[in-house]
Parts: sequence; C-alpha cells; structure tokens
Amino acid sequence: MKFITPSRLSVLAKQLSCEFSGDPDFNITGINEIHVVSHGEITFVDHPKYYDKALASAASVVIIDKKIDCPPGKNLIFHSDPFSIFKKIIEDRISFKPSVSPIHPSAKIGEGTVIQPGVFIGENVVIGKDCLIHANVAIYQNTKIGDRVIIHSNTTIGADAFYMKRRPDAYEKFPTCGTVSIGDDVEIGAGCTVDRGVTDETSIGDGTKLDNQVHVGHDTKIGKHCIVAAQVGISGIVRIEDYALIWGQVGIDRDLTIGKGAVILAQSGVSKTLAGGKSYFGSPAGDSKERMKEYVSIKKIPELLKRVDELEKLLEKQRGK
Amino acid sequence: MKFITPSRLSVLAKQLSCEFSGDPDFNITGINEIHVVSHGEITFVDHPKYYDKALASAASVVIIDKKIDCPPGKNLIFHSDPFSIFKKIIEDRISFKPSVSPIHPSAKIGEGTVIQPGVFIGENVVIGKDCLIHANVAIYQNTKIGDRVIIHSNTTIGADAFYMKRRPDAYEKFPTCGTVSIGDDVEIGAGCTVDRGVTDETSIGDGTKLDNQVHVGHDTKIGKHCIVAAQVGISGIVRIEDYALIWGQVGIDRDLTIGKGAVILAQSGVSKTLAGGKSYFGSPAGDSKERMKEYVSIKKIPELLKRVDELEKLLEKQRGK
Amino acid sequence: MKFITPSRLSVLAKQLSCEFSGDPDFNITGINEIHVVSHGEITFVDHPKYYDKALASAASVVIIDKKIDCPPGKNLIFHSDPFSIFKKIIEDRISFKPSVSPIHPSAKIGEGTVIQPGVFIGENVVIGKDCLIHANVAIYQNTKIGDRVIIHSNTTIGADAFYMKRRPDAYEKFPTCGTVSIGDDVEIGAGCTVDRGVTDETSIGDGTKLDNQVHVGHDTKIGKHCIVAAQVGISGIVRIEDYALIWGQVGIDRDLTIGKGAVILAQSGVSKTLAGGKSYFGSPAGDSKERMKEYVSIKKIPELLKRVDELEKLLEKQRGK
Repeated sequence: MKFITPSRLSVLAKQLSCEFSGDPDFNITGINEIHVVSHGEITFVDHPKYYDKALASAASVVIIDKKIDCPPGKNLIFHSDPFSIFKKIIEDRISFKPSVSPIHPSAKIGEGTVIQPGVFIGENVVIGKDCLIHANVAIYQNTKIGDRVIIHSNTTIGADAFYMKRRPDAYEKFPTCGTVSIGDDVEIGAGCTVDRGVTDETSIGDGTKLDNQVHVGHDTKIGKHCIVAAQVGISGIVRIEDYALIWGQVGIDRDLTIGKGAVILAQSGVSKTLAGGKSYFGSPAGDSKERMKEYVSIKKIPELLKRVDELEKLLEKQRGK
Repeated sequence: MKFITPSRLSVLAKQLSCEFSGDPDFNITGINEIHVVSHGEITFVDHPKYYDKALASAASVVIIDKKIDCPPGKNLIFHSDPFSIFKKIIEDRISFKPSVSPIHPSAKIGEGTVIQPGVFIGENVVIGKDCLIHANVAIYQNTKIGDRVIIHSNTTIGADAFYMKRRPDAYEKFPTCGTVSIGDDVEIGAGCTVDRGVTDETSIGDGTKLDNQVHVGHDTKIGKHCIVAAQVGISGIVRIEDYALIWGQVGIDRDLTIGKGAVILAQSGVSKTLAGGKSYFGSPAGDSKERMKEYVSIKKIPELLKRVDELEKLLEKQRGK
Repeated sequence: MKFITPSRLSVLAKQLSCEFSGDPDFNITGINEIHVVSHGEITFVDHPKYYDKALASAASVVIIDKKIDCPPGKNLIFHSDPFSIFKKIIEDRISFKPSVSPIHPSAKIGEGTVIQPGVFIGENVVIGKDCLIHANVAIYQNTKIGDRVIIHSNTTIGADAFYMKRRPDAYEKFPTCGTVSIGDDVEIGAGCTVDRGVTDETSIGDGTKLDNQVHVGHDTKIGKHCIVAAQVGISGIVRIEDYALIWGQVGIDRDLTIGKGAVILAQSGVSKTLAGGKSYFGSPAGDSKERMKEYVSIKKIPELLKRVDELEKLLEKQRGK
C-alpha cells in the first residue's frame, strides 16, 4: 500500500504514541508485508526468528517489539505489539464505504466492454477494452482488469485476504488494503474467487486461463499463459511462472514458487517450490514418473510380506538343523 | 423443527390415517431427526438396525414400520413407510413462498449493518449489528446472523440440505425445514455454501473464520474460533469443536466429531472422529507424524524389493550347495 | 451445432478459401467435435495420430491438414490449420449479444415455475413447469431445463467450455457453441458450475441430484438418478451412466465412462473408465476393497524393513562362519 501523501517518521510515531529511532524527517512512502516491502516503506516484525530478515529487507522503517540499536540506513518504531501498530497505520488510511449502486460511478470501463446484468463493480475499478463480464460477477474496489478479459458468472474478484492473527482467545482480522491486477486476454471461469493482496497486489498475467471454481489467495502472482483447471486451490503469496499447467483439484501451499512451464497433475498437493519444465504428481507432489512408480509399488507389499515370511521360515529351518 | 402450536397425538395420527400406541392426549411439540430429537418431539425409524437407538432416544413419539409394544414413556405411530409420514408432517407445516423483492420485508437488519447491492435476503432472516454483507450473497429464509459478521460475495447461506431417500427407481427429496445460525465476529469467504439443517440447525460459532469456497453441510455445528481454509468440504451432521484448524481442500465425512483444537493438514480426508489437541494428515486421516513417516516409507519399497530378491538368491545358492 | 440452413460444400469451401475433395453439392447440416459428430456434419483433425479416427467417424466432411485421397462417402476440406477453419465456421454462425435485462425476453418459462430475485436468464432459455430457481443463479443462452427442477443460489449453468488450443506463444480460445440440457426432477446445489458443450450438449438426466459446488465440464453426459456429492469435479466429455453414486471431492478425468450404478468413494481420482455396479476408491481410483488393503499395507513397511535387516544380518553371520 502506497501512501497518498508520505508521512514523516516523527509525526507518524507521535500519532501512534510510539518511540522511534532513526531519522525523524524520513519520509515514509507506504506500508507492506515483509515479502513485498520496498525502499521507503514500513514493515513489521514480531518474532525474534524474523528479526534478521526484517532488518535485512528493503523496508526503510521496521516496527519491532524489542529495543535494539538502529542499523544504518534503517529506522525503527518500537511497540510491544507490532501487528496492532501495522494494522492501525492501515486502518487510518482505508475505510469501507457502502456502495449505493451495483456499478460504482468511479469505475472506468473501456470501449467495447460488455457488463451483463447483476454485476457488482466497486470503487476505483478499471476495466479495459472489449471485455465480457458475465452476469452476477462481483468485482471489489481498486481492481484493475486488462483488455479482452472474460469473467464468467458468480465469480468474485478482490475479496479480502484470509489473513488473521491468533490472539490468546480469538483471531484478529487484518484489514486488506491490497489490490488485484488482471492482464490482457485472461479468462476466468464461473464460481472462481481471486482475493486482493494484503498490502500489495494479487496478479494474473496476460493470456492466463482459469477454469471454474478456482481459488487464488492474496498476493499470489500467476504468470502469463498459464492454464489452471477446475477446482484448483492456490494459497496466498504463491509465485507461478509463465506457461505453468495445473490440472484439476490441485492444492498449492503458501509462499512457494512453481517454475516456468511446470506441469502439475490432477489432485496433487504442492508443499514445496517446484522447478520449471518438469511434471509433478501426488500429495505431497513429486516427480510424476517417480510418484507413479511409488504408487504401483504399493501393490507389491502383500507379495513382499509373503516372500519375507518364506525367507524367515527357511532360515529358521536351516538354523534348526 | 418446533411446532408453532403443539399437536395432540390422537389428532395427528388421525390426520395421517395411522394407527398409534401410547397417550392419545400427548402434546407433540416438534419433529426432528434421531440425532437431534428432544423430549416432546417426533422422530422416525425405518430399519430394524436402528429400532433400539430410536426407542432409546429423547423422542417422545417414534414413527416405526413394525407393530411393537409401546415402551413406557414413549408413544408410537405405525406406518409401513415412516419416512413418508415424517416428510408429510413437515410438508404440512412449511410452504415455499416466492420472494417478490431481493430483501424480504420481514428481514430484521441491525444498526450499522451494510448490505451491498445484489444481496438476496429471504423471509424471517435476522442480521445483527455492524455486519457487512458483500454483493450478490444469497441468504435463505430463517437464517440468524450475529453482530460484526462479514460475508463475502457469491456465498449462499441456508440452501436446502442434500438429504434424499433412495426409492426403488429414484431419489425422493426430503423437505428442508431447519435453519442456519451464525455467531458474532464470524467471517465467511466468497463462494461458500452453508446448508440449512434438515429439521434442526446448522451453526457456526463466535469468531470462526471460513476462507473462500468452503462447503458446510446440513446440521453441522462448527464451534468458536475455528479456522477453515479454502475449498474445505464438511458433510452433514459434523461436530467441530472450538479452536479447530482445518487447512485447504480437506474433506470431512458425515456424523463425526473433530475435537477441540485439532489441526487437520491440507487435502486430508477425515472418515472417523478425531481427538482434540492433535495434528492429522492423509486420506484417510491419521496422526500427522505417523502418516508422514508412512509416505516416506513408500519410497523404500523398490529398494526392499531388490534386497529381498538378493536374499532369495543367496538362500537359493546355499540350498543348491 | 446444427446449421439453421445447410451449407453446400463447394460454397462453404469457397467462403473459407480452402480446396476440397468430394461432392461439391453435398449439403452440410452441422459441425461437431469428433467424439459427437453425426452424418451430414463437419469435423476436423490436425494430428496424424487421429487421421484414421476422423476418417472412420460419422462425419461427412473432415477438415484435414494433409492432402490425402478422399475415401468413399466422405468429403475433405484441406487447410494447414484445421482448428482455425473449424473455429471460423462456428464464429461466422454465432455472435454474443449483450443482455439488456436479467431475464431475456425470449426465455420460455413454464407454469408454476418460480424465479427468485437476482436470477439471470440468457437468450433462448427454456424452463419447464414447477421449477424453483433460487436467487442469483445465472443461466446462459440456449439452456433447456425440464419440469420440477430446483437450482440453488449462485449456481452457473451454461458457461463457456474450458477448451483452448496451445499455439506457440499463447492459448487460443475455441468459441463455445453447444448447449446444456437438464432433465425432469433434477436438483442442483448452490455454487455449482455446469458448462455448455463445445459444439454439442452437456446433459444431466432425470432425477439426478447434485450437491453444492459441483463442477460439470463441457459435453459431459450424466445419466438418470445419479447422486453427486459436494465439491466433485467432473471434466469434459465424461459419460456417467444411470444410478452412479459419486461422493464428495471426487475428481474425474476427461473422456471416460463411469458404468451404471458405480459407487466412487470420497476424494477419489478417476483416470480410467470404470465398470458399473462396483465400488471404487483412491487416486488413481481402483477397486475400493483392494485400495483399502493397499493403504493398510503401507503401515507394514517399517516392520518389513526391520525384518529384512534381520534376515540380512543372519545370512551375513552364516556366511562369515
């Protein structure tokens, strides 16, 4: 999330009633999670395990729950609950305004684009030329859609990220302030859900085609010319490179990469980064040929059991001699 | 399903043209399936396997397909097809009335609650304070929603139970007369489906969060502060206790319990009750560490085969001496 | 896709600037993919592997990328890119017209049928008597629905087939010109998606019941009185015979047959044709009892490893003597 106008570190820290360390006149230009933060921006860290990562990140300001010395080129904001401060900074900058009409007057819709009945379009949505948005699609605020994009009925673009912090007794929802960006010539099937980024962008590259009932989590980046078959579930913060081919009902865990041109066979469960140009299968997914062999080998266990029984008997006999 | 006014046993039996046994003046207060029936209510049983369970249940009246002696404290209604009688009693008490406007005039919507465009709200729906119901959500009749609930676009709350009886040639649909009840601070993602109870209630406890494309079957009770990730499918009559954590694409079979704080890893298939406080994986789901070990052990089968071949050759040689 | 008026082979070939071989006066009555093409119709073939199949099919005209002799009773259209010619013939005959009202004036809706608020009904849709179409359902053009059909909220009937051709740099979408046909007494749950046929028909037989979030691909034919539980994904061109029983989250690969009365247990992945009257489980799916035994046998691998270790030690000792 970029700030509309930058905030001075000293002013922001005062507003938040937090101590800080660094350059009081530093101009903060935005706020983002650690995996997407840029120079000039704030991020947060609330676990010693990630202190080094946060301090080595591109972030110019780190909200941290321990009083440490400020490394050169960084600025620190101190608070016992960095998540709550991070959340507060965002909440002060966003506010949900109810829509009074299905298509928000701020929406920009390109020439030749057809919006079928029952479509909802939120604030600041930009849709390119010659698109076809089918009946009863819902597009949340700040979504950007390219040219010649087709979106089928009952699909939801830009719903909130599923991003909660466990507190002792309950889960605290983090406000979603990111966006969705969809390239040119993309087709999205019926009943799909593509969530907004938490603070950054969820994106689908040019020419990529999604079948029905596909789920795309927050901040996931799908490359160009990928094929994603029906009922695939992609978690948040996944990077899928160009020309990937993902078959039906595959599930992909968060924060990993699917390499260029990788093929993932149906119902596989991906829990680790996969190199490009190869074919994968199984749950957890591995090299598809190896996995197929493994599955076939399971059938041989009963026979193996019998053979080992036999060997044991033979040896027993020998020893009995 | 509670009756608006109680029915006398003798009067009801006469309306249904059924013989009965028990107290003719017994006042029946409602009707429910065997797993949720209370004192004062009717249930039915149509298989000898379940006679004992039905007669030992809390039900005050049992519709049964065999003329047996009436146990003390119970009442019996006799019919060769108890399901059809059970169904008739319910059908006589419900009727579908088409909605003429998207938001039924009987709906009660709390202060501060925002209903976005394209939302459908059926008869007798009650929604609490400060909720946000996103565009194109459909909420069927008799649903009760707490305060500060968020429901994302294209989600359906309260559709009919998937509950059919196999007849010789076709399936007979049972009319759904139950409800859905959603607690405070619940969030339900986009494209979810939560079915009504058959005769009772489907419920989601305070603070529970559902990601996108989650399915919750009829009469399932999800506790408080649970997390249910995207594309999870939960059958009917499931009990999920507080603080359960269910990852993406998990499937849960009907009529079982997930204990408090249980963690179910992605793509698992749960076919049995699982104790609380532990982690589960696989299809069928078991202890996650054991299952992981099992999956790793599969890779060793080819090597095992070779080793057993070798052993057999050695012994063959020995015996040949 | 049937042509409204037949096309003469010579005239059509001239329009397409293609050479042809056969009877110039042959009247072409329609166009269809190879697996559903009938006498009188055109199909295409663009891979030597399928030449024989195409020439042996019922098609009267085959668009082919090799100059071969015309077999008796057939006609050939020659082009280096048969897919593009096939596509062009269809595109010339269909055109998307935006809907100006949620229910197209051409829709025919039977007596006693209730259409709830927010439903979209496209051009030339026919719905029978006493149906109940719940809020926010979307029904695309040319869909035919029988009597007493129930469709729950946020379901999409008749979206485009997921049918793309890989070109060197991108995927080319094939225009969907087929239809959907739904029999009598069918129930379709909430959040389902049923795609149109590519050139032919996707169909669901009388009395079949689909639970929530089921996906049915293009040109798939589901028989009568089948049960399909929640979150099942059925690819394109699948044939499911009567009385099949498919449990939750099953995935079914394209172009195969599920025999009459087959039972497929939850989360199974079907990659081959399955005979009727039997029960299946697993991914890939096999005989359910065998698969269950296999899964149990996996637990015995660690013990097997120990036993083989022991045998090897014993033999080592013997040989050391």
